[in-house]
Formats: sequence, C-alpha cells, structure tokens
Amino acid sequence: MILPVQIHLTLPAWTQHVVDMGRLYPTDEEQVLLAIELSRMNVEQNSGGPFGAAVFTAEGRLISIGVNRVIQQSCSAAHAELMAYMTAQQRLQQFRLNANGEKITLATSAQPCCQCYGATVWAGIDRLLIGARSEDVESLTGFDEGPLPADWVGELNRRGIEVRQDICREAARSALARYRELEGQVY
Amino acid sequence: MILPVQIHLTLPAWTQHVVDMGRLYPTDEEQVLLAIELSRMNVEQNSGGPFGAAVFTAEGRLISIGVNRVIQQSCSAAHAELMAYMTAQQRLQQFRLNANGEKITLATSAQPCCQCYGATVWAGIDRLLIGARSEDVESLTGFDEGPLPADWVGELNRRGIEVRQDICREAARSALARYRELEGQVY
Repeated sequence: MILPVQIHLTLPAWTQHVVDMGRLYPTDEEQVLLAIELSRMNVEQNSGGPFGAAVFTAEGRLISIGVNRVIQQSCSAAHAELMAYMTAQQRLQQFRLNANGEKITLATSAQPCCQCYGATVWAGIDRLLIGARSEDVESLTGFDEGPLPADWVGELNRRGIEVRQDICREAARSALARYRELEGQVY
Repeated sequence: MILPVQIHLTLPAWTQHVVDMGRLYPTDEEQVLLAIELSRMNVEQNSGGPFGAAVFTAEGRLISIGVNRVIQQSCSAAHAELMAYMTAQQRLQQFRLNANGEKITLATSAQPCCQCYGATVWAGIDRLLIGARSEDVESLTGFDEGPLPADWVGELNRRGIEVRQDICREAARSALARYRELEGQVY
C-alpha cells in the first residue's frame, strides 16, 4: 500500500461562469448576497451542500470564493469558508491573507461551523460577515454546526476580527430552505 | 483576473521513505510515537511546523499521515491533523472515515488547535490520541492554539469520540523544543 500524499480539491465548473471577477462588491450586503447566491447555485447545480462564501479586499474586490464540496470530493473539511480561504491563500501565495497589511473580509452565507470558526482564527481576515444564523442552519437543514466557545464573537474580536451577523438573513434562510425542498443529503 | 478554483496540497517527499505502511501500530503509544516522529522529521527536514498526525484502523493499520505544511504550501489550514484527515478521506473515498462501521483513530503529536478540533468533529473518528498539551505547544514554541469550548473533551465524548491525553508527552515535548532550538518560524 502506498502512502497517500496528495490532496486535490476543486470548485465546481459552473463557478467560473457565474462569478464576475471584474465587478466590485463595495457593501457588506453585496458581499453576503454573493455568498448566498453561491450557496443557492450550489444547491441548484447539485454540486454540494447549501453553503457559499467569498473573500474580498476592503474596497470590495473579489479574491476568491468557496462552496461546500464535502460529499462530491470525499472531504469533511471542504466547507465553503475553508474552500474560500484556501483558494485565496493559494492565489495570493500567503498563508495569512492580510499579511501585507491589506484589510480582508470573509462573507459567508451562514455562521461558520466549529471547524471553519477555528480556521477563521488563522486565515488572516479582519472582518467576518454572516448571513444565516446557526439556528437557521440547524432548523432549516438539519446540519449540525458543532461546539463553539461560549463567547465565540468575543474571541474573534480579541484577535482583531470584527463580526457582523444577520446580514440579508432572510435571503440566506431561503437558500437553506431550498436545500431541504430538494431533499439534499444531510450528514 | 481568473477565479481560482483549484487547491493542491502535498505531504513532503521524505514521508514516502520514512513511513512503513506494512507494519502494524497496535498500541496507543506506538500510534502517538509515529505522530511525534513525523513532527520531529518535519522540523529536521525543514518541511513545516513541529506537528505530526496519523490515522489508524482499530487494529493499528496505518491509513494516512499528516504534517504541518502551512508556510510551505501557503495554506493556513494545512495543519498535521487536517492533512491526515484529508489524505485518509481521499484514499478511502469517504467523507466520514468511520462511515462503513470500522473504528478509526487519530493520533496527534500535540493537542489539536481550534481549527483541527472542529475538523475532528466532522472527520469520522472514534478515538483521539494526544501527545503534548496545548500549554506545551504554547510554552515551548510560542504557537497559539486558539479558542476552544470550555468542555472540549466532553463535547467530543458526546459525539462518540474518546479522548486520551498525555500519551508519550515527554517525547512530544522534546520534538516541540527542537523546533525552538532550530529557530523555526512561529506564526
């Protein structure tokens, strides 16, 4: 038996046709709405779970996106936020996205799970923008969000990361509900 | 600008020569000692941070290994535990390692950070074997382990994951101290 030494993950092909890298997303709402649109497309295209995320510069330039790819790529870690962080870091060739002093934002369609919460601590972002709440994820889809520190927002704040919640929450909830309608797999 | 859609991560080439996939690691101590040896080799070979991990079946058959690759691969998520989970899942083509009923163990040279803690909730393991404590990591290397739930062990236990700590702790501490001696980068 050979030791497995390679990990290869990809975003779905449709992302290259849907996402306009040329435009700016200057407001928090526009940034989260892109993440929600990605979550909805991921469901409609049957390419993963109902979660999307995107990494932006302070002025709203798009660096990368992510969608959930857990089942499709046999990878429990392939959540939207982690895919967005990893593709952004590979693109910039920086393991801390804000290492050069540029302010970086992650917008996500739903509150990060326990893994992506922890990954957020290390990714090098300055702002975290969240659409749906964990309770929305759990009640609308049945996905478990996992255990977090009691003061999860404060822990991020103390590490220099601002957190804004409930951005376009109803749109985010509606994308989650669509996954249930289509009887998407919950794991 | 083109949307980045690929993530490619690799373990160092030396891992293929050092790790014997043919032998069994039947005890908890042997499993953690392999993780510690990997952490030490990663330091000596200058291929990443001082952390190693390995995934085993219940009888001690090795499925995969991981070492820290954060700097080398420009990926804040490329911690030893996550590399071990992802390579194991790609090898088995299962996003839950124990989905087929086989009991799975992760052995790690040091207590998982906040990200790898969360990833452990989703990876599909039954046992988590830990060498060095978080306080060893922080005092011996200066690496931050990040915020965890207050009862992090209990949260894993309630999800069916047994946790054993302080396995070969002194050997694990010694590997961490070696990183400081060699003035490895702390981020």
